[in-house]
Amino acid sequence: MSPAPPIAPPRHIVAEAVARALAEDLGRRGDITSDAVIEPGAAGRWEIAARARGVIAGLDCARETFAALDPAISFDPSCDDGWHVEPGQTVACLAGPVRAVLAGERTALNFLGHLSGIASLTARYVALTSGTRAHIVCTRKTTPGLRALEKYAVAAGGGRNHRFGLDDAVLIKDNHVAAAGGISRAVAAARAHAGHMTRIEVEVDSIAGLEEALAAGAGIVLLDNMSIAELDEAVRVADGRAVLEASGGVSEQTCAAIAATGVDLISVGRLTHSAPALDLGLDAVG
Amino acid sequence: MSPAPPIAPPRHIVAEAVARALAEDLGRRGDITSDAVIEPGAAGRWEIAARARGVIAGLDCARETFAALDPAISFDPSCDDGWHVEPGQTVACLAGPVRAVLAGERTALNFLGHLSGIASLTARYVALTSGTRAHIVCTRKTTPGLRALEKYAVAAGGGRNHRFGLDDAVLIKDNHVAAAGGISRAVAAARAHAGHMTRIEVEVDSIAGLEEALAAGAGIVLLDNMSIAELDEAVRVADGRAVLEASGGVSEQTCAAIAATGVDLISVGRLTHSAPALDLGLDAVG
Amino acid sequence: MSPAPPIAPPRHIVAEAVARALAEDLGRRGDITSDAVIEPGAAGRWEIAARARGVIAGLDCARETFAALDPAISFDPSCDDGWHVEPGQTVACLAGPVRAVLAGERTALNFLGHLSGIASLTARYVALTSGTRAHIVCTRKTTPGLRALEKYAVAAGGGRNHRFGLDDAVLIKDNHVAAAGGISRAVAAARAHAGHMTRIEVEVDSIAGLEEALAAGAGIVLLDNMSIAELDEAVRVADGRAVLEASGGVSEQTCAAIAATGVDLISVGRLTHSAPALDLGLDAVG
Amino acid sequence: MSPAPPIAPPRHIVAEAVARALAEDLGRRGDITSDAVIEPGAAGRWEIAARARGVIAGLDCARETFAALDPAISFDPSCDDGWHVEPGQTVACLAGPVRAVLAGERTALNFLGHLSGIASLTARYVALTSGTRAHIVCTRKTTPGLRALEKYAVAAGGGRNHRFGLDDAVLIKDNHVAAAGGISRAVAAARAHAGHMTRIEVEVDSIAGLEEALAAGAGIVLLDNMSIAELDEAVRVADGRAVLEASGGVSEQTCAAIAATGVDLISVGRLTHSAPALDLGLDAVG
Amino acid sequence: MSPAPPIAPPRHIVAEAVARALAEDLGRRGDITSDAVIEPGAAGRWEIAARARGVIAGLDCARETFAALDPAISFDPSCDDGWHVEPGQTVACLAGPVRAVLAGERTALNFLGHLSGIASLTARYVALTSGTRAHIVCTRKTTPGLRALEKYAVAAGGGRNHRFGLDDAVLIKDNHVAAAGGISRAVAAARAHAGHMTRIEVEVDSIAGLEEALAAGAGIVLLDNMSIAELDEAVRVADGRAVLEASGGVSEQTCAAIAATGVDLISVGRLTHSAPALDLGLDAVG
Amino acid sequence: MSPAPPIAPPRHIVAEAVARALAEDLGRRGDITSDAVIEPGAAGRWEIAARARGVIAGLDCARETFAALDPAISFDPSCDDGWHVEPGQTVACLAGPVRAVLAGERTALNFLGHLSGIASLTARYVALTSGTRAHIVCTRKTTPGLRALEKYAVAAGGGRNHRFGLDDAVLIKDNHVAAAGGISRAVAAARAHAGHMTRIEVEVDSIAGLEEALAAGAGIVLLDNMSIAELDEAVRVADGRAVLEASGGVSEQTCAAIAATGVDLISVGRLTHSAPALDLGLDAVG
Repeated sequence: MSPAPPIAPPRHIVAEAVARALAEDLGRRGDITSDAVIEPGAAGRWEIAARARGVIAGLDCARETFAALDPAISFDPSCDDGWHVEPGQTVACLAGPVRAVLAGERTALNFLGHLSGIASLTARYVALTSGTRAHIVCTRKTTPGLRALEKYAVAAGGGRNHRFGLDDAVLIKDNHVAAAGGISRAVAAARAHAGHMTRIEVEVDSIAGLEEALAAGAGIVLLDNMSIAELDEAVRVADGRAVLEASGGVSEQTCAAIAATGVDLISVGRLTHSAPALDLGLDAVG
Repeated sequence: MSPAPPIAPPRHIVAEAVARALAEDLGRRGDITSDAVIEPGAAGRWEIAARARGVIAGLDCARETFAALDPAISFDPSCDDGWHVEPGQTVACLAGPVRAVLAGERTALNFLGHLSGIASLTARYVALTSGTRAHIVCTRKTTPGLRALEKYAVAAGGGRNHRFGLDDAVLIKDNHVAAAGGISRAVAAARAHAGHMTRIEVEVDSIAGLEEALAAGAGIVLLDNMSIAELDEAVRVADGRAVLEASGGVSEQTCAAIAATGVDLISVGRLTHSAPALDLGLDAVG
Repeated sequence: MSPAPPIAPPRHIVAEAVARALAEDLGRRGDITSDAVIEPGAAGRWEIAARARGVIAGLDCARETFAALDPAISFDPSCDDGWHVEPGQTVACLAGPVRAVLAGERTALNFLGHLSGIASLTARYVALTSGTRAHIVCTRKTTPGLRALEKYAVAAGGGRNHRFGLDDAVLIKDNHVAAAGGISRAVAAARAHAGHMTRIEVEVDSIAGLEEALAAGAGIVLLDNMSIAELDEAVRVADGRAVLEASGGVSEQTCAAIAATGVDLISVGRLTHSAPALDLGLDAVG
Repeated sequence: MSPAPPIAPPRHIVAEAVARALAEDLGRRGDITSDAVIEPGAAGRWEIAARARGVIAGLDCARETFAALDPAISFDPSCDDGWHVEPGQTVACLAGPVRAVLAGERTALNFLGHLSGIASLTARYVALTSGTRAHIVCTRKTTPGLRALEKYAVAAGGGRNHRFGLDDAVLIKDNHVAAAGGISRAVAAARAHAGHMTRIEVEVDSIAGLEEALAAGAGIVLLDNMSIAELDEAVRVADGRAVLEASGGVSEQTCAAIAATGVDLISVGRLTHSAPALDLGLDAVG
Repeated sequence: MSPAPPIAPPRHIVAEAVARALAEDLGRRGDITSDAVIEPGAAGRWEIAARARGVIAGLDCARETFAALDPAISFDPSCDDGWHVEPGQTVACLAGPVRAVLAGERTALNFLGHLSGIASLTARYVALTSGTRAHIVCTRKTTPGLRALEKYAVAAGGGRNHRFGLDDAVLIKDNHVAAAGGISRAVAAARAHAGHMTRIEVEVDSIAGLEEALAAGAGIVLLDNMSIAELDEAVRVADGRAVLEASGGVSEQTCAAIAATGVDLISVGRLTHSAPALDLGLDAVG
Repeated sequence: MSPAPPIAPPRHIVAEAVARALAEDLGRRGDITSDAVIEPGAAGRWEIAARARGVIAGLDCARETFAALDPAISFDPSCDDGWHVEPGQTVACLAGPVRAVLAGERTALNFLGHLSGIASLTARYVALTSGTRAHIVCTRKTTPGLRALEKYAVAAGGGRNHRFGLDDAVLIKDNHVAAAGGISRAVAAARAHAGHMTRIEVEVDSIAGLEEALAAGAGIVLLDNMSIAELDEAVRVADGRAVLEASGGVSEQTCAAIAATGVDLISVGRLTHSAPALDLGLDAVG
């Protein structure tokens, strides 16, 4: 089972996130325990293995962590980001200087565990949409400083990405509509400002709002916190004239029913703000 | 109910984390939706309110977010970090330019939600130790780039902090012991290197290991993945000669029983790697 | 004559560009001429005035330059970004410490001259489209390190913005089409990857290519280096089914004729890569 | 025809400028078009060729751009900075992964086009001084953030560099003279402060000023906006006692006549603030 | 004579310090003397030699300096940090491009001279404690921006490190005691806040203070500015119940006598704030 | 006695040096001792006083340190940089929050002590040149990362500055002469490259070298390690045709005699690489 890995974030984003995390862990003195106790020349071999079922994401971050500490460390993944793993399954093999591997262990595992946790939760939601047209998408509710990596992890789990920030797409929410004096005026203002390469989405919380948005020519409509019945009605009303995104409090309990309504997208904040880490460990071998 | 707020991390750590998060969200163009739709001079009032029960942490990050966007925004917390809140309870009041507040809303809530999530989970574990001598402590299993803030959130939830990185204390683990040729030699090597201001802890996974550690003069011993029976025995064996830390797979199901054994510390990785965000929202008022 | 100023880039982008430029000019010692020759307490008044006809852009950069050197400098613009000015017209008035104003003079004028030069050239192109549906847009052919500010200057001149980078919209060019095995397959691949909030544009260099792009559902088509006759034909063929962008070697000689074909957008690289600076000067007053 | 390449700016300046430009173009997601459409393993060959006559500058920036994206890209220049090229002439050959080359194409060309534009314009001015003692020099009117690279491009075009910032040489202008109470006092103050390794130049706008400057011992005198007749007179008056720099509104129309007066230096602001980019393209080969 | 080298600071700390120092020395143009005078391809060989007796520290900084300028430079140390050298003794051999070596010479020697100066002074103090139980430790009186490297140099000279900053250990001084209302209360407050991995030291200036500190359970006591007689008394009073640190105005004249009192640690501020540089030079060979 | 303060380095250089030093001292947790022991609202008053005779430099760094920690701290210097102080003399008065003042105490004193140490040593050398034409100048032998501040401290002590880096002036040394094939050729090469705003100095170690340098038109000549007799001869030979700098192993023992020879400049490396810190303390008042 080996899906193509998702497309990685720019190298400098990985490099900067890893450098920051290492600086945070190494502080002013580095790994004083290993430096005191391990011989400088000692070498070893290790495996990173899953301790729970999940989907892997973050191998580039782990590789970069060890490379930043010592280029003499070899890091050989046994799988790609996006692969499903079982408890006990090897994720990557390492060999090299003991001091440097131990100094990087926690940082590498923190990246892998955090991003794999997001990929794993995403995959569970994606599975719940099986047989429907719905795609699972993430939101801007990400951990501060890690957005690009977390969006990547969502893709590794089979999800799709919503906008990456406030600047790459327009999303008109209720307060914008109120300030603009109606959906039509808000859409027109956005269109005048945004440029032809920027998409515009409008949030509505009622069928009346949806109809107004469609009349305003909105190509994407976010249906906020609607019931299944309302979503059914929205799909019927839109009739293919707009991309429909269901949003608001989506859970593993409600996801399949939402997907069955025929919406195009289901956005799930908890993919990035509340995914538990995937349990992974690094163990010496041989 | 108003405990003293925990001691905040250095200002520059808050400022840098916020600047990074804002840059990530604003990108190259800023909040193009609000800029297109909201009048430049428009002003308003908002409340940040809890939508679930929990413990607040991260008010400084929220304040800094809005201040970085526009010093004209006023940010008045209704509580301090460390306070327990109920659903619907106001956490902070804001007033100022609409554009800037909306531009900062998501970043501020991402900080507050993430850190309050950690504080809230910590508080649940702390409650489970009530009436015992045990303190809940966090680990180095933190989200990359946010360690100082997450350690602070643990303190806001009533927990205590373990070491902050590889450099500020020694923690001798099984691989160190193996490399050094025994616990006594590892402790001696650490003592020779670390300096008089650095504490030394030793991880053991058996009563025999504990006895060796005590004989080596280890002042703090981490009891790794021991059963309740083993922990009982360890407490009896140590008899006050060392600080004892129970660690490994601690859950809300097992925490109270572990605390009842008489250990001094219970370290819980999931406080920082798997805490779900606390749900908070920003709503216009008046 | 006072159009609304265009929407400014994020504050931190202005602040970082100014800090970098000041560091570059001040070096390790600062303004050694003024420091040697001007009394520490000396104060004065100045005006920044246009020495040629043009459109102003970059007042925020100038304000930030002086503020970074000494908050005691007052900077009062007499116009807004986007205003047309005549030779001799005052752009801003300054008052404050002589040393700091002279230290910032060149940096402030470098920003103002560069960005106003772009705005001025843009305005000339925009004027050439008068009475047509065509908008002038810029490209990614920007000066390294100044993209957000230069895109802003284009808006100040009445132009619109194309995508801001490789990541916020898809633009399928000839080499992408060749690699994908045709326009339809390239568009499909882009759609699968990009997400619902990302727009997709396809570059074609023939009417046949345009027809293939329309058939593939491309909502925006870049017509590369087409003759006026071909553009006429393209507008007729597309018949409103896609946004049409004329691109390639557009000059002030050809712009009006291109606009008259009925295309929606005309992209002009030289707005940002070859605009001469607007001549501005700072003179003492009183 | 292959002049020695000019001396390059420090490596870290090239590296930082390139990193900043790439970050600006790649944003949070990288080249989403190429990533979606091009196979990960696809490789190719390209040429960068001139599309207009000019002088090349910036090859190090182009090399660094591709190296930063993927060390597997080979970059082989066919010429050096400072070479004159004709339309169609190959400037460099590239081979390597398609995705990375396309991701770097625009950034590399933006550097090459901008810096070669400066070198090309400089070369035109230099040619106008042929047979005279005059050297063409640039000013501090540079694009913010790119001064060191632009000064280098001037040298690649055969020009010479004036001071690099406010701190590495003294240039006493009219306002300094006014503040100091005369040229002699300004020169004396500068000499007392600047140190023996710092040169001092004085700006004058009349023959009387020149005579005062010479009497004050000024070794370099900037003749501001003087007519050809005044410059002739200045050269006669100075009679070799000072280096003379003609400055102010120098154009390709006036440059030769200014050079013929016998001044030592002609400074031209537009070399760096108004040079149009040299047109260059990257095309697949084979 | 070759002691094991002390454990190096994290690589990124060395890299950042070197990058900053090189940027400071190379400025905007690099080594204009060597660039003007030395042929681009010229290569050579050099030795770095001691010109005075001392202890070497900082070889990693020197290596990094040359590597950052040109990876083609080979840098082969003839000794390790921590070695005692005599005047004329070779410390390292270099070979490679002349321009790059000369460009890095001063920066590399500045690091080596400064850090070796600290190591050398430390070694002199350490020698004065010979035959006693006392260790020489440094303080936080370090040169701004170089603390980690200077602490390392102290270790290279045979000294030990005190805390690295305000955050990795508690040191309760007189003003803290006054604010807390007594030593016992201060110690209790520190214990409640600091966490089990953080050591606590208390400063006292009298035997009464020492007794109060011991009673409060302080494990480490700083004896501030005590006379030899007081130190004798303090050692007698403490009787092994606490680690004792003598501090305050320790000189090479007084150090041996202090060590003879039986204290465990002698802290010496001048190791890092007043050590003269070790004289080293780089000379061409062959 | 209050000389005018020397001209300060650019604000951002002070700000960056202070931010770096504070980050280094505060680490991840800040001042855990004061935070644990001092009440949040506690305020106080302090004086910074000299504990030895010397010359003050670095007040801006101290002010910036406290301002960065808490704008509520007032910092009122009792003198200016460049003033001579006696033991016990107050240098500055502080008032404000106890926690923040104690957190900044060491960093502020480290700057003040280090820079005042340099100023003080400089002043001693300057005094030794009294009645002669000689000025004391510093070298590039500065502490890595602090060059601009240390050059400023030399000026505060009454010295003058040599070049600030490799890029702002040419200094042709023996290896350059050897590589160029003689002094004349080296000077010619430097002149061709450096530009009219860059000064050129030549190092010689013999009267013959001096004569060659004078013949080559060198305006500044560094006399390396010459005896007093040689210096006398050099002054006689040069006869005012060049600025003469005596350099090499200058000590307080030899400085006056060197100055008496009539050289213009005496450069002293130890001003910046070996000056002991000036002893200063911060004490609570009232």
